[in-house]
Amino acid sequence: MPRMTQPTHSTQQATVSTELYFDFLCPYAWRGVELAAVLKAEGEAFTLRHYSLVEGNHAENAKELTWRVTEQSLDAPDGDGYMKYLKPSLRAFLASHAAALQGEAAHWAFTLALFRAHHERKEPLTDDTIQAAAQEAGLDLNAFAAALAEEAARRAELRAELDAAREVGVFGTPTYVLPTGEAAYYRFETLTREPAQAREWWTLYRTVLTSEAGIGTIKRAKNRPPRRA
Amino acid sequence: MPRMTQPTHSTQQATVSTELYFDFLCPYAWRGVELAAVLKAEGEAFTLRHYSLVEGNHAENAKELTWRVTEQSLDAPDGDGYMKYLKPSLRAFLASHAAALQGEAAHWAFTLALFRAHHERKEPLTDDTIQAAAQEAGLDLNAFAAALAEEAARRAELRAELDAAREVGVFGTPTYVLPTGEAAYYRFETLTREPAQAREWWTLYRTVLTSEAGIGTIKRAKNRPPRRA
Repeated sequence: MPRMTQPTHSTQQATVSTELYFDFLCPYAWRGVELAAVLKAEGEAFTLRHYSLVEGNHAENAKELTWRVTEQSLDAPDGDGYMKYLKPSLRAFLASHAAALQGEAAHWAFTLALFRAHHERKEPLTDDTIQAAAQEAGLDLNAFAAALAEEAARRAELRAELDAAREVGVFGTPTYVLPTGEAAYYRFETLTREPAQAREWWTLYRTVLTSEAGIGTIKRAKNRPPRRA
Repeated sequence: MPRMTQPTHSTQQATVSTELYFDFLCPYAWRGVELAAVLKAEGEAFTLRHYSLVEGNHAENAKELTWRVTEQSLDAPDGDGYMKYLKPSLRAFLASHAAALQGEAAHWAFTLALFRAHHERKEPLTDDTIQAAAQEAGLDLNAFAAALAEEAARRAELRAELDAAREVGVFGTPTYVLPTGEAAYYRFETLTREPAQAREWWTLYRTVLTSEAGIGTIKRAKNRPPRRA
Protein backbone atom coordinates (compact mmCIF):
# COMPACT_ATOMS: atom_id res chain seq x y z
CA MET A 1 0.00 0.00 0.00
CA PRO A 2 1.24 3.52 -0.75
CA ARG A 3 2.42 5.53 2.23
CA MET A 4 0.30 8.56 3.06
CA THR A 5 2.26 11.78 2.74
CA GLN A 6 -0.05 13.90 4.87
CA PRO A 7 2.10 16.74 6.20
CA THR A 8 2.47 16.96 9.94
CA HIS A 9 1.67 20.18 11.74
CA SER A 10 5.34 21.11 12.00
CA THR A 11 5.88 20.57 8.28
CA GLN A 12 2.96 22.86 7.51
CA GLN A 13 4.45 25.53 9.74
CA ALA A 14 7.75 25.21 7.91
CA THR A 15 6.19 25.66 4.50
CA VAL A 16 4.24 28.88 5.03
CA SER A 17 7.02 31.12 6.29
CA THR A 18 10.26 32.31 4.73
CA GLU A 19 13.22 31.53 6.96
CA LEU A 20 15.72 34.34 7.30
CA TYR A 21 19.23 33.33 8.37
CA PHE A 22 21.31 36.11 9.91
CA ASP A 23 24.31 36.94 12.06
CA PHE A 24 24.28 40.13 14.13
CA LEU A 25 27.83 40.81 12.92
CA CYS A 26 26.73 41.39 9.34
CA PRO A 27 25.51 44.72 7.93
CA TYR A 28 23.93 42.94 4.97
CA ALA A 29 21.97 40.74 7.38
CA TRP A 30 20.86 43.92 9.16
CA ARG A 31 19.41 45.33 5.94
CA GLY A 32 17.90 41.93 5.18
CA VAL A 33 16.13 41.83 8.54
CA GLU A 34 14.90 45.42 8.10
CA LEU A 35 13.52 44.44 4.68
CA ALA A 36 11.73 41.45 6.17
CA ALA A 37 10.37 43.55 9.04
CA VAL A 38 8.72 45.94 6.59
CA LEU A 39 7.19 43.07 4.62
CA LYS A 40 6.13 41.30 7.80
CA ALA A 41 4.17 44.38 8.87
CA GLU A 42 2.29 43.97 5.59
CA GLY A 43 1.45 40.31 6.17
CA GLU A 44 4.36 38.34 4.67
CA ALA A 45 5.58 35.62 7.05
CA PHE A 46 9.27 35.43 8.02
CA THR A 47 10.95 33.34 10.69
CA LEU A 48 14.21 34.54 12.24
CA ARG A 49 17.04 31.98 12.14
CA HIS A 50 20.66 32.20 13.20
CA TYR A 51 23.68 31.38 11.06
CA SER A 52 27.20 31.83 12.43
CA LEU A 53 29.68 33.46 10.05
CA VAL A 54 32.53 32.67 12.47
CA GLU A 55 31.67 28.97 12.46
CA GLY A 56 30.86 28.89 8.75
CA ASN A 57 34.15 30.55 7.75
CA HIS A 58 36.30 28.65 10.25
CA ALA A 59 39.19 26.93 8.46
CA GLU A 60 38.77 23.74 10.51
CA ASN A 61 35.21 23.34 9.20
CA ALA A 62 36.11 23.39 5.49
CA LYS A 63 35.58 19.66 5.03
CA GLU A 64 33.42 18.69 8.00
CA LEU A 65 32.10 20.43 11.06
CA THR A 66 34.69 20.06 13.82
CA TRP A 67 34.83 23.56 15.39
CA ARG A 68 31.50 24.61 16.86
CA VAL A 69 30.74 28.15 17.98
CA THR A 70 28.29 26.64 20.47
CA GLU A 71 31.17 24.92 22.28
CA GLN A 72 33.18 28.12 22.79
CA SER A 73 33.40 29.88 26.15
CA LEU A 74 32.23 33.45 26.66
CA ASP A 75 34.72 33.71 29.55
CA ALA A 76 37.81 33.01 27.43
CA PRO A 77 40.09 35.90 26.41
CA ASP A 78 39.10 37.80 23.28
CA GLY A 79 40.35 36.19 20.10
CA ASP A 80 42.71 37.56 17.46
CA GLY A 81 41.98 38.33 13.84
CA TYR A 82 38.65 36.98 12.69
CA MET A 83 38.23 35.26 16.07
CA LYS A 84 37.67 38.63 17.71
CA TYR A 85 34.13 38.37 16.34
CA LEU A 86 33.47 35.07 18.12
CA LYS A 87 32.34 36.31 21.53
CA PRO A 88 30.30 39.31 20.31
CA SER A 89 28.45 37.11 17.81
CA LEU A 90 27.85 34.21 20.22
CA ARG A 91 26.73 36.58 22.99
CA ALA A 92 24.20 38.18 20.65
CA PHE A 93 22.90 34.81 19.42
CA LEU A 94 22.29 33.51 22.95
CA ALA A 95 20.54 36.77 23.86
CA SER A 96 18.41 36.44 20.72
CA HIS A 97 17.29 32.96 21.80
CA ALA A 98 16.54 34.31 25.29
CA ALA A 99 14.41 37.08 23.75
CA ALA A 100 12.62 34.58 21.52
CA LEU A 101 11.18 32.90 24.64
CA GLN A 102 9.03 36.01 25.11
CA GLY A 103 7.26 35.44 21.80
CA GLU A 104 7.66 36.33 18.16
CA ALA A 105 6.92 40.05 18.46
CA ALA A 106 9.41 40.42 21.31
CA HIS A 107 12.03 38.51 19.32
CA TRP A 108 11.66 40.76 16.29
CA ALA A 109 11.73 43.91 18.42
CA PHE A 110 14.91 42.75 20.18
CA THR A 111 16.58 41.66 16.95
CA LEU A 112 15.90 44.99 15.24
CA ALA A 113 16.97 46.96 18.32
CA LEU A 114 20.27 45.08 18.57
CA PHE A 115 20.97 45.30 14.83
CA ARG A 116 20.32 49.05 14.87
CA ALA A 117 22.48 49.59 17.93
CA HIS A 118 25.37 47.75 16.30
CA HIS A 119 25.14 48.83 12.66
CA GLU A 120 23.29 52.15 12.77
CA ARG A 121 24.75 53.56 15.99
CA LYS A 122 28.01 51.56 15.74
CA GLU A 123 27.81 50.20 19.28
CA PRO A 124 29.80 47.03 20.09
CA LEU A 125 27.97 43.74 20.74
CA THR A 126 28.59 43.82 24.52
CA ASP A 127 26.38 42.81 27.44
CA ASP A 128 25.55 46.50 27.95
CA THR A 129 24.38 46.94 24.36
CA ILE A 130 22.35 43.74 24.64
CA GLN A 131 20.68 44.93 27.87
CA ALA A 132 19.83 48.28 26.29
CA ALA A 133 18.33 46.51 23.26
CA ALA A 134 16.24 44.28 25.53
CA GLN A 135 14.94 47.37 27.31
CA GLU A 136 14.27 49.21 24.04
CA ALA A 137 12.38 46.17 22.78
CA GLY A 138 10.18 46.20 25.89
CA LEU A 139 11.24 42.75 27.10
CA ASP A 140 10.50 41.51 30.60
CA LEU A 141 14.04 42.05 31.84
CA ASN A 142 13.82 39.59 34.72
CA ALA A 143 12.58 36.82 32.47
CA PHE A 144 15.27 37.77 29.92
CA ALA A 145 18.01 37.50 32.55
CA ALA A 146 16.65 34.13 33.72
CA ALA A 147 16.59 32.84 30.13
CA LEU A 148 20.15 34.03 29.56
CA ALA A 149 21.25 32.26 32.72
CA GLU A 150 19.98 28.95 31.31
CA GLU A 151 22.93 29.07 28.94
CA ALA A 152 23.05 25.38 28.05
CA ALA A 153 19.46 25.47 26.83
CA ARG A 154 20.10 28.58 24.74
CA ARG A 155 23.23 26.97 23.26
CA ALA A 156 21.23 23.87 22.35
CA GLU A 157 18.61 26.01 20.58
CA LEU A 158 21.34 27.82 18.68
CA ARG A 159 23.04 24.53 17.74
CA ALA A 160 19.78 23.23 16.24
CA GLU A 161 19.46 26.31 14.01
CA LEU A 162 23.10 26.20 12.94
CA ASP A 163 22.69 22.54 12.03
CA ALA A 164 19.58 23.37 10.01
CA ALA A 165 21.51 26.12 8.19
CA ARG A 166 24.26 23.64 7.39
CA GLU A 167 21.72 21.26 5.89
CA VAL A 168 20.50 24.02 3.55
CA GLY A 169 24.09 24.97 2.76
CA VAL A 170 23.87 28.56 4.00
CA PHE A 171 27.25 30.30 3.52
CA GLY A 172 26.46 33.98 4.15
CA THR A 173 23.85 36.33 5.57
CA PRO A 174 21.18 37.23 4.88
CA THR A 175 20.02 33.97 3.32
CA TYR A 176 16.29 33.50 2.81
CA VAL A 177 14.74 30.04 2.45
CA LEU A 178 11.44 30.42 0.62
CA PRO A 179 8.40 28.32 1.60
CA THR A 180 8.77 26.63 -1.80
CA GLY A 181 12.32 25.52 -0.96
CA GLU A 182 14.50 27.91 -2.96
CA ALA A 183 17.26 29.47 -0.88
CA ALA A 184 19.88 32.09 -1.65
CA TYR A 185 22.18 34.66 -0.17
CA TYR A 186 20.89 38.20 -0.96
CA ARG A 187 23.46 40.95 -0.54
CA PHE A 188 22.43 44.55 -1.10
CA GLU A 189 23.80 47.93 -0.06
CA THR A 190 20.78 50.18 0.46
CA LEU A 191 18.67 50.20 3.62
CA THR A 192 14.95 50.60 3.08
CA ARG A 193 12.04 50.91 5.48
CA GLU A 194 9.68 51.99 2.70
CA PRO A 195 6.98 49.35 1.98
CA ALA A 196 6.73 49.82 -1.79
CA GLN A 197 10.50 49.68 -2.19
CA ALA A 198 10.83 46.69 0.14
CA ARG A 199 8.13 44.89 -1.83
CA GLU A 200 9.92 45.66 -5.12
CA TRP A 201 13.30 44.38 -3.91
CA TRP A 202 11.72 41.26 -2.42
CA THR A 203 9.77 40.54 -5.59
CA LEU A 204 12.94 40.97 -7.66
CA TYR A 205 14.79 38.46 -5.46
CA ARG A 206 11.97 35.94 -5.66
CA THR A 207 11.70 36.41 -9.42
CA VAL A 208 15.40 35.57 -9.76
CA LEU A 209 14.98 32.46 -7.60
CA THR A 210 11.91 31.16 -9.39
CA SER A 211 12.82 32.09 -12.97
CA GLU A 212 12.79 29.23 -15.48
CA ALA A 213 16.32 30.34 -16.40
CA GLY A 214 17.46 28.38 -13.33
CA ILE A 215 19.64 31.23 -12.09
CA GLY A 216 22.34 30.07 -9.69
CA THR A 217 24.35 33.25 -9.25
CA ILE A 218 24.35 36.92 -10.13
CA LYS A 219 27.50 38.45 -8.67
CA ARG A 220 29.25 41.73 -9.44
CA ALA A 221 32.69 41.75 -11.02
CA LYS A 222 35.28 42.54 -8.34
CA ASN A 223 36.11 46.05 -9.51
CA ARG A 224 32.54 47.06 -10.35
CA PRO A 225 30.78 47.01 -6.95
CA PRO A 226 27.15 48.09 -6.71
CA ARG A 227 26.33 51.67 -5.82
CA ARG A 228 24.32 52.48 -2.70
CA ALA A 229 21.27 54.60 -3.55
CA MET B 1 39.23 77.08 -20.09
CA PRO B 2 37.20 73.91 -19.50
CA ARG B 3 38.33 70.86 -21.43
CA MET B 4 35.86 69.60 -24.00
CA THR B 5 34.67 66.10 -23.18
CA GLN B 6 33.58 65.21 -26.69
CA PRO B 7 33.73 61.41 -26.85
CA THR B 8 36.08 59.94 -29.41
CA HIS B 9 34.79 57.41 -31.89
CA SER B 10 36.29 54.49 -29.96
CA THR B 11 34.70 55.69 -26.71
CA GLN B 12 31.31 55.84 -28.38
CA GLN B 13 31.76 52.28 -29.61
CA ALA B 14 32.64 51.13 -26.12
CA THR B 15 29.63 52.72 -24.49
CA VAL B 16 26.84 51.45 -26.74
CA SER B 17 27.58 47.73 -26.60
CA THR B 18 27.44 45.22 -23.75
CA GLU B 19 30.72 43.32 -23.47
CA LEU B 20 30.33 39.59 -22.95
CA TYR B 21 33.30 37.80 -21.38
CA PHE B 22 33.44 34.06 -22.00
CA ASP B 23 35.65 30.98 -22.04
CA PHE B 24 34.85 28.15 -24.45
CA LEU B 25 35.39 25.70 -21.59
CA CYS B 26 32.32 26.91 -19.70
CA PRO B 27 28.76 25.64 -20.25
CA TYR B 28 27.36 28.72 -18.50
CA ALA B 29 29.28 30.94 -20.91
CA TRP B 30 27.80 28.88 -23.77
CA ARG B 31 24.26 29.62 -22.56
CA GLY B 32 25.23 33.24 -22.02
CA VAL B 33 26.49 33.58 -25.60
CA GLU B 34 23.34 31.88 -26.93
CA LEU B 35 21.24 34.35 -24.93
CA ALA B 36 23.19 37.28 -26.35
CA ALA B 37 22.93 35.89 -29.89
CA VAL B 38 19.14 35.83 -29.64
CA LEU B 39 19.05 39.41 -28.34
CA LYS B 40 21.60 40.55 -30.92
CA ALA B 41 19.33 39.29 -33.69
CA GLU B 42 16.71 41.63 -32.25
CA GLY B 43 19.00 44.67 -32.26
CA GLU B 44 20.74 44.63 -28.85
CA ALA B 45 24.49 45.21 -29.20
CA PHE B 46 26.97 42.73 -27.67
CA THR B 47 30.72 42.49 -28.11
CA LEU B 48 32.45 39.13 -27.64
CA ARG B 49 35.37 39.21 -25.19
CA HIS B 50 37.62 36.46 -23.86
CA TYR B 51 38.30 35.68 -20.21
CA SER B 52 40.51 32.73 -19.24
CA LEU B 53 39.24 30.57 -16.39
CA VAL B 54 42.55 28.70 -16.29
CA GLU B 55 44.50 31.92 -15.83
CA GLY B 56 41.93 33.46 -13.49
CA ASN B 57 41.85 30.42 -11.21
CA HIS B 58 45.61 29.78 -11.29
CA ALA B 59 47.01 29.63 -7.75
CA GLU B 60 50.08 31.68 -8.72
CA ASN B 61 47.84 34.58 -9.75
CA ALA B 62 46.00 34.92 -6.44
CA LYS B 63 47.85 38.09 -5.44
CA GLU B 64 49.22 39.42 -8.70
CA LEU B 65 49.32 38.20 -12.27
CA THR B 66 52.45 36.09 -12.71
CA TRP B 67 51.24 33.08 -14.71
CA ARG B 68 49.85 34.06 -18.11
CA VAL B 69 47.91 31.69 -20.33
CA THR B 70 49.19 33.71 -23.29
CA GLU B 71 52.77 32.64 -22.49
CA GLN B 72 51.99 28.92 -22.50
CA SER B 73 53.01 26.64 -25.36
CA LEU B 74 50.48 24.68 -27.39
CA ASP B 75 53.24 22.15 -28.14
CA ALA B 76 53.89 21.22 -24.50
CA PRO B 77 52.54 17.92 -23.13
CA ASP B 78 48.96 17.99 -21.86
CA GLY B 79 48.65 19.17 -18.26
CA ASP B 80 47.31 17.36 -15.22
CA GLY B 81 44.29 18.22 -13.12
CA TYR B 82 42.86 21.61 -13.91
CA MET B 83 45.81 22.25 -16.27
CA LYS B 84 44.38 19.72 -18.72
CA TYR B 85 42.01 22.55 -19.76
CA LEU B 86 44.88 24.91 -20.62
CA LYS B 87 45.62 23.85 -24.19
CA PRO B 88 41.99 23.30 -25.30
CA SER B 89 41.00 26.71 -23.95
CA LEU B 90 44.02 28.58 -25.37
CA ARG B 91 43.63 26.87 -28.75
CA ALA B 92 39.98 27.93 -28.91
CA PHE B 93 40.78 31.52 -27.89
CA LEU B 94 43.44 31.93 -30.59
CA ALA B 95 41.07 30.46 -33.17
CA SER B 96 38.38 32.87 -32.01
CA HIS B 97 40.70 35.82 -32.58
CA ALA B 98 41.59 34.44 -36.01
CA ALA B 99 37.88 34.18 -36.85
CA ALA B 100 37.28 37.73 -35.60
CA LEU B 101 39.53 39.07 -38.37
CA GLN B 102 36.80 38.05 -40.83
CA GLY B 103 34.32 40.45 -39.27
CA GLU B 104 31.75 40.49 -36.50
CA ALA B 105 29.19 38.18 -38.14
CA ALA B 106 31.88 35.60 -38.89
CA HIS B 107 33.17 35.81 -35.33
CA TRP B 108 29.71 35.21 -33.85
CA ALA B 109 29.03 32.33 -36.23
CA PHE B 110 32.34 30.69 -35.35
CA THR B 111 31.89 31.26 -31.62
CA LEU B 112 28.41 29.72 -31.62
CA ALA B 113 29.53 26.81 -33.83
CA LEU B 114 32.46 25.99 -31.53
CA PHE B 115 30.40 26.35 -28.34
CA ARG B 116 27.71 24.05 -29.75
CA ALA B 117 30.26 21.48 -30.90
CA HIS B 118 31.83 21.39 -27.44
CA HIS B 119 28.83 21.70 -25.12
CA GLU B 120 25.88 20.45 -27.18
CA ARG B 121 27.64 17.66 -29.10
CA LYS B 122 30.33 17.09 -26.43
CA GLU B 123 33.23 17.29 -28.89
CA PRO B 124 36.68 18.08 -27.47
CA LEU B 125 38.29 21.48 -28.19
CA THR B 126 40.82 20.06 -30.68
CA ASP B 127 42.17 21.44 -33.95
CA ASP B 128 39.74 19.16 -35.81
CA THR B 129 36.73 20.52 -33.92
CA ILE B 130 37.95 24.07 -34.52
CA GLN B 131 38.36 23.43 -38.26
CA ALA B 132 34.86 21.97 -38.47
CA ALA B 133 33.43 24.98 -36.62
CA ALA B 134 35.22 27.35 -39.00
CA GLN B 135 33.72 25.49 -41.93
CA GLU B 136 30.24 25.43 -40.34
CA ALA B 137 30.53 29.18 -39.74
CA GLY B 138 31.31 29.76 -43.41
CA LEU B 139 34.76 31.25 -42.78
CA ASP B 140 37.32 31.73 -45.55
CA LEU B 141 39.42 28.76 -44.48
CA ASN B 142 42.63 29.92 -46.16
CA ALA B 143 42.43 33.31 -44.47
CA PHE B 144 41.58 31.56 -41.19
CA ALA B 145 44.65 29.32 -41.46
CA ALA B 146 46.84 32.32 -42.27
CA ALA B 147 45.48 34.24 -39.26
CA LEU B 148 46.08 31.22 -36.99
CA ALA B 149 49.66 30.99 -38.27
CA GLU B 150 50.29 34.57 -37.07
CA GLU B 151 50.21 33.20 -33.56
CA ALA B 152 52.09 36.02 -31.84
CA ALA B 153 49.57 38.57 -33.10
CA ARG B 154 46.63 36.46 -31.94
CA ARG B 155 48.26 35.98 -28.51
CA ALA B 156 48.72 39.75 -28.24
CA GLU B 157 45.04 40.34 -29.05
CA LEU B 158 44.05 37.77 -26.44
CA ARG B 159 46.40 39.32 -23.85
CA ALA B 160 44.76 42.72 -24.35
CA GLU B 161 41.29 41.28 -23.65
CA LEU B 162 42.45 39.29 -20.62
CA ASP B 163 44.05 42.45 -19.23
CA ALA B 164 40.81 44.37 -19.81
CA ALA B 165 38.89 41.62 -17.99
CA ARG B 166 41.31 41.85 -15.10
CA GLU B 167 40.70 45.57 -14.86
CA VAL B 168 36.95 44.96 -14.56
CA GLY B 169 37.57 42.18 -12.03
CA VAL B 170 35.92 39.41 -14.04
CA PHE B 171 36.14 36.12 -12.11
CA GLY B 172 33.80 33.78 -14.01
CA THR B 173 31.90 33.38 -17.27
CA PRO B 174 29.64 34.64 -18.59
CA THR B 175 30.21 38.14 -17.26
CA TYR B 176 28.42 41.00 -19.00
CA VAL B 177 29.67 44.57 -18.76
CA LEU B 178 26.75 46.90 -19.47
CA PRO B 179 27.24 50.11 -21.49
CA THR B 180 26.45 51.98 -18.24
CA GLY B 181 29.36 50.28 -16.46
CA GLU B 182 27.65 47.69 -14.26
CA ALA B 183 29.23 44.24 -14.57
CA ALA B 184 28.35 40.88 -13.10
CA TYR B 185 28.70 37.14 -13.51
CA TYR B 186 25.36 35.63 -14.61
CA ARG B 187 25.09 31.88 -14.11
CA PHE B 188 21.95 30.09 -15.24
CA GLU B 189 21.08 26.50 -16.08
CA THR B 190 18.50 26.64 -18.88
CA LEU B 191 19.39 27.16 -22.54
CA THR B 192 17.04 29.39 -24.47
CA ARG B 193 16.90 30.40 -28.12
CA GLU B 194 13.41 31.85 -27.72
CA PRO B 195 13.36 35.66 -28.11
CA ALA B 196 10.66 36.47 -25.54
CA GLN B 197 12.31 34.26 -22.94
CA ALA B 198 15.78 35.62 -23.71
CA ARG B 199 14.45 39.16 -23.38
CA GLU B 200 12.82 38.31 -20.03
CA TRP B 201 15.98 36.76 -18.58
CA TRP B 202 18.12 39.64 -19.83
CA THR B 203 15.74 42.24 -18.42
CA LEU B 204 15.75 40.43 -15.07
CA TYR B 205 19.55 40.49 -14.95
CA ARG B 206 19.70 44.18 -15.85
CA THR B 207 17.00 44.99 -13.30
CA VAL B 208 19.10 43.33 -10.59
CA LEU B 209 22.20 45.28 -11.66
CA THR B 210 20.47 48.66 -11.84
CA SER B 211 18.14 48.33 -8.82
CA GLU B 212 18.44 51.08 -6.21
CA ALA B 213 18.87 48.26 -3.68
CA GLY B 214 22.50 48.15 -4.79
CA ILE B 215 22.48 44.37 -5.17
CA GLY B 216 25.97 42.87 -5.04
CA THR B 217 25.16 39.16 -4.98
CA ILE B 218 22.30 36.72 -5.28
CA LYS B 219 23.69 33.23 -4.89
CA ARG B 220 21.98 29.94 -4.08
CA ALA B 221 22.65 28.15 -0.83
CA LYS B 222 24.99 25.22 -1.50
CA ASN B 223 22.44 22.46 -1.02
CA ARG B 224 19.58 24.22 -2.82
CA PRO B 225 20.82 24.49 -6.42
CA PRO B 226 18.55 25.97 -9.09
CA ARG B 227 16.43 23.66 -11.18
CA ARG B 228 16.84 23.55 -14.94
CA ALA B 229 13.50 24.16 -16.72
